[in-house]
Amino acid sequence: MTTPPDFGPRPGETTAPLPPDFDAGVYFIGHCRTPWTRRDECPKTAGLSDAPCALEIDPAFAMGLGRIEERDWIWALYWMHHSPRDVMVQKPRHSDDPRPKGVFALRSPARPNPIALSALRLERVERRADGSALLRVRGLDCLDGTPLIDVKPVSPSDARPYEPLA
Amino acid sequence: MTTPPDFGPRPGETTAPLPPDFDAGVYFIGHCRTPWTRRDECPKTAGLSDAPCALEIDPAFAMGLGRIEERDWIWALYWMHHSPRDVMVQKPRHSDDPRPKGVFALRSPARPNPIALSALRLERVERRADGSALLRVRGLDCLDGTPLIDVKPVSPSDARPYEPLA
Repeated sequence: MTTPPDFGPRPGETTAPLPPDFDAGVYFIGHCRTPWTRRDECPKTAGLSDAPCALEIDPAFAMGLGRIEERDWIWALYWMHHSPRDVMVQKPRHSDDPRPKGVFALRSPARPNPIALSALRLERVERRADGSALLRVRGLDCLDGTPLIDVKPVSPSDARPYEPLA
Repeated sequence: MTTPPDFGPRPGETTAPLPPDFDAGVYFIGHCRTPWTRRDECPKTAGLSDAPCALEIDPAFAMGLGRIEERDWIWALYWMHHSPRDVMVQKPRHSDDPRPKGVFALRSPARPNPIALSALRLERVERRADGSALLRVRGLDCLDGTPLIDVKPVSPSDARPYEPLA
């Protein structure tokens, strides 16, 4: 895959060799549909946008959407396919804190498994004649065409970080 | 991979053929360490346990943990390697509602990409002499040895489902 120049590591970042082989494989279950076709158009951080977007689910996986319309909020897991995977320490571009951080302490798309996670408001489910389906959502931050790998309902146990600790 | 009998589809569930090839590959960055070695010992739903657990990060990826100790809550994404991937409609085992649901409307580990997501309280980071690291956490629900694929800080935008809508 060709990585556009502005997706590569920046000065001061640290890369490390990745293992020679993958340990498991993922299926793309569909794609994200967003208004953004260039990286500099995307919202700087997740949650800054309320633009109408969609998750397009391929016919092979649309059967898995049964009763999702009962949910108001869903998680989308998507695959940031342009991002380098070997950057282990990064200098966040949009932060007041210039000190480097490890990738696992950041939400950067550049990480060993380039999976992004967003909580989305589900507004409507549309079934299409070709067997695919469209989940109309708000809250995506990625480029149009970004591969989608999972959709999950938001669960009460996800709320624990936002509740006072016992 | 051998799937133990109690991980397979149950009566009334619907499977569908998966695509012939994977679209991308994942690296296992480490493994989950939990007290549970049999499925019937695991907490029935995420969030029901406060047992002390750990995320063991392999030496090749431990550099990516820099400054994670500044976070109180992290997301773990882990790979439910025993789960069937072709079940599209399920009857939740632990639910009062017996009607089938699509996998994307459920948090079941059986899904096309068997990725589980849990918010964990990070209690301590330990660096070990062999270059690996141990994140001491509470809140995991999976079998001991479950492969880990990502760790992310919990972000303010993740809280949107739990806030009043504008």
